[in-house]
Amino acid sequence: MAEIFLALIHHPIVNRNGRVITSAITSLDLHDLARSSRTYGVRAVYVVHPIPEQREFARSVIDHWRIGYGRSFDSRRVEALNLLEIVEDLDAAVAAAESAAGRRPEIVHTSAREAQGISFAAMRDRIAQEGAPPVLILLGTGFGLAPAARERADVALEAIRGTGDYNHLSVRAAASIILDRLCGR
Amino acid sequence: MAEIFLALIHHPIVNRNGRVITSAITSLDLHDLARSSRTYGVRAVYVVHPIPEQREFARSVIDHWRIGYGRSFDSRRVEALNLLEIVEDLDAAVAAAESAAGRRPEIVHTSAREAQGISFAAMRDRIAQEGAPPVLILLGTGFGLAPAARERADVALEAIRGTGDYNHLSVRAAASIILDRLCGR
Repeated sequence: MAEIFLALIHHPIVNRNGRVITSAITSLDLHDLARSSRTYGVRAVYVVHPIPEQREFARSVIDHWRIGYGRSFDSRRVEALNLLEIVEDLDAAVAAAESAAGRRPEIVHTSAREAQGISFAAMRDRIAQEGAPPVLILLGTGFGLAPAARERADVALEAIRGTGDYNHLSVRAAASIILDRLCGR
Repeated sequence: MAEIFLALIHHPIVNRNGRVITSAITSLDLHDLARSSRTYGVRAVYVVHPIPEQREFARSVIDHWRIGYGRSFDSRRVEALNLLEIVEDLDAAVAAAESAAGRRPEIVHTSAREAQGISFAAMRDRIAQEGAPPVLILLGTGFGLAPAARERADVALEAIRGTGDYNHLSVRAAASIILDRLCGR
């Protein structure tokens, strides 16, 4: 099976009006994403933020659990948070994944607005194949990834569909569903 | 298809040591669960808490989006939050679901530690059947539902499994995966 990497993107993303913005790092995103990633065997999660102070904040959230009180409080939490790496841009995430996997990852775009894109079933088969290249799945915060992120991707994954037209999942929920569909039993 | 109801239980649940406790309501749980529920066609989400001040807090979170600034800021958010109902115990949740569906719901227990339980595939088939009874899915906060909640259930759902033994999803992630497995396309 392919090695899976995630990148949680805080820039470039769009706001509700489609304007390109930078979102703030949310401590709960880090926890939820780390726990879901650990559950589904993700190799590393890159938290992408261009602002040094925000990256510092993310590191302090992780260190609270890795070093201080949190460590003795919940070792399973530490195990999950150890998957997180804080980087400044998508290039750094790609480079880190390439370095970890020994091979350039295939970059996978995700969006709630994707009308076409490869199906979850096809992507799951692809990942399951012997010798499949590593994949780096891009997750947009805010109202989703900006066009610039999509241009960097090798493949776009179909949107998650529920039972109707409404599709407005949190990035935390979307990420867990994507991992379950691609790697769950 | 059966009507689906969720109950987010803050008591009786257990802490890391298996002691029965009451957890605090988290505003992000409400948002995430509402959005996932709206996406997957859930009829209503009961937020169960025995303490009046906590129920009041939950209502204030919802009203912020339903009435004030939030309403104009994001109408999709309102649409999701309208699914939430704040109740004091499981009995009230069952009664509300029965009143909404016109029929007593089947109570479904969920746990990350469930070793047996009905499979997701079997539960999905059951729900999809013509004339299937409504189901009320119990979700535990903290370290999961207390034994007293399990005793109230008609059926237990198998645990979500990832790729290995680690299974420590947030209730937000677990709920979204459960809905996707039971109702997703």
